[in-house]
Amino acid sequence: MTHKPAQTTVPIHETIANRWSGRAFDAARPVNREQKFALMEAARWAPSCFGDEPWRFIVWDRHHDGAAWDKAFDCLGEWNQQWVKNAALLLLATADSRFRKNGKPNAWGAYDTGAASENLCLQAAAMGLVAHQMGGFDPDKTRRTFAIPEPFQCMAMIAVGHPAPADTLNQELKDAELAPRMRQPLTANFFAAEWGRPVDA
Amino acid sequence: MTHKPAQTTVPIHETIANRWSGRAFDAARPVNREQKFALMEAARWAPSCFGDEPWRFIVWDRHHDGAAWDKAFDCLGEWNQQWVKNAALLLLATADSRFRKNGKPNAWGAYDTGAASENLCLQAAAMGLVAHQMGGFDPDKTRRTFAIPEPFQCMAMIAVGHPAPADTLNQELKDAELAPRMRQPLTANFFAAEWGRPVDA
Repeated sequence: MTHKPAQTTVPIHETIANRWSGRAFDAARPVNREQKFALMEAARWAPSCFGDEPWRFIVWDRHHDGAAWDKAFDCLGEWNQQWVKNAALLLLATADSRFRKNGKPNAWGAYDTGAASENLCLQAAAMGLVAHQMGGFDPDKTRRTFAIPEPFQCMAMIAVGHPAPADTLNQELKDAELAPRMRQPLTANFFAAEWGRPVDA
Repeated sequence: MTHKPAQTTVPIHETIANRWSGRAFDAARPVNREQKFALMEAARWAPSCFGDEPWRFIVWDRHHDGAAWDKAFDCLGEWNQQWVKNAALLLLATADSRFRKNGKPNAWGAYDTGAASENLCLQAAAMGLVAHQMGGFDPDKTRRTFAIPEPFQCMAMIAVGHPAPADTLNQELKDAELAPRMRQPLTANFFAAEWGRPVDA
């Protein structure tokens, strides 16, 4: 995988710095059972409001059940299909909009599921795998195809696999793969003691 | 900090396994500038839909601006105040419900903000700090007190500080601090190829 560590003003944890959303996957190499379970265990141990664990994930493994993987792949947008076609795993992250214990609305369903998915992506990075989350899929088609119950929101598809050289991508995707990673300046999103006051001030 | 690594069926990344939401903080010890910026940088480099970075965080440091920290503390529920009183930092995680670039609704605002907060909590764990997210605060009072603009949702307060022995807590909180960490079985939330089919099946 192309090494593109985050550019930070102070050092941060290596795995957090090194995680990024690559698109070059090795089509031939499966993600093995231990790796697959490590991804799920990492997500499982995320924190959640009242310990509700509002996330549910579906995992599709093309090397284990290619027909089911194809059905998930068919729910992706065309642009994403260009590169996801080489990913060993697809996962769907869904968020319960109700609390498990009493059925009341859970305002943290998506928030907590985002934490679980981030744990999964960091675990992938720690194992030398690429994980790339996508909003570019058809949530209605996904719901129909996999009979996802109504209280659950389809939040993201996640492609996971072993990395391949950027050269395996077409020119447009290769350019994206090799481009520097960008973020807003820290002061745009982090405020000191009051809204809008930059932390450096 | 009490060592309570996640119980997993396969090994996972040490920092992900070791992060948990403790309540025993050392009231005397500040979080230094480098640590504070590392927390923010970790959050800053989380992934987001269309790279929108929908999160905004306010950081209150009691050792730097005690009066502002007190105002944030006053927005917490009473039960949380029992133990947050010893935390060096409070942070508020807010999620933009609109895309920055075009003002359209962003369905991933909370999801992406959850990822940023999880990065922050993992960075805390990696530095030997305790970080504990809370839904138990008054979002309306918080919005009024800090003039938080309407498109932003107040998602979580996060207490951060250096750990203290569990003995520094009252009996009820000490019991919680020393209790085993619990999660649903993996098969309850992770499905193989179709909704509801446990991954082990």
